[in-house]
Amino acid sequence: MRLAIIEAQKALESDEIPIGAVIVVGDKVVGRGHNMVESLIDVTAHAEIMAITAAASTIGGKYLTDCTIYVTVEPCPMCAGALAWSQIGRVVYGAADPKRGYSRFGKEMLHPRTEVVSGVLSAECEELMNAFFAKLR
Amino acid sequence: MRLAIIEAQKALESDEIPIGAVIVVGDKVVGRGHNMVESLIDVTAHAEIMAITAAASTIGGKYLTDCTIYVTVEPCPMCAGALAWSQIGRVVYGAADPKRGYSRFGKEMLHPRTEVVSGVLSAECEELMNAFFAKLR
Repeated sequence: MRLAIIEAQKALESDEIPIGAVIVVGDKVVGRGHNMVESLIDVTAHAEIMAITAAASTIGGKYLTDCTIYVTVEPCPMCAGALAWSQIGRVVYGAADPKRGYSRFGKEMLHPRTEVVSGVLSAECEELMNAFFAKLR
Repeated sequence: MRLAIIEAQKALESDEIPIGAVIVVGDKVVGRGHNMVESLIDVTAHAEIMAITAAASTIGGKYLTDCTIYVTVEPCPMCAGALAWSQIGRVVYGAADPKRGYSRFGKEMLHPRTEVVSGVLSAECEELMNAFFAKLR
């Protein structure tokens, strides 16, 4: 999750909502990404989407069953849908997102074999988000 | 929808699940895409995602409020999530997809101001899908 936070900081430096993601197999990083919606002018350029695309490219296969994604904020429905298609083994996220997160649509949004861990380093992940939105006001 | 079907046919020719999408403003096409999951080895490379990215690039803005997307099959939750972020004005789809479509999670997956029209040229859209899956068997 430390690496995902570093990704989120990159987003913050580019005036993007600071969300970062890293995908690992064992202790090897196979994909990383940070939110680039504003810089790419593309609503699909979320941290998780970038990391999924990168990981599939590294692995040379579209399924991420042996992978864990670490993401600083609870994935949105779009990203949960992408994670479901990837059949990712494990989703570990930091801050919950009751308003925009996937869980309001239920855990069925993810693949039935995907394990979920939440609240990891959530204070730090949330602090980054608060810093961004405080700057806007 | 005719143009979306042409996109779907391109996917079929590349041995991809034949789904195509076209985004228009008035009568001007601003984005198009077809399923490229296998060729790009990327679960996020759905027709709608490609079309959204293309349309935002053409328009020079991330919001597609004045746009209509024509897509041959009911969008999946990932694509519905992307369409929600884009605040697209209208979604017109052909074949329903009760198993993989977004509607099993409810219409709240889309933006509240997005209008939905379903069943347009659905027989032709379905026929393409059936042709693909018949080839697999």
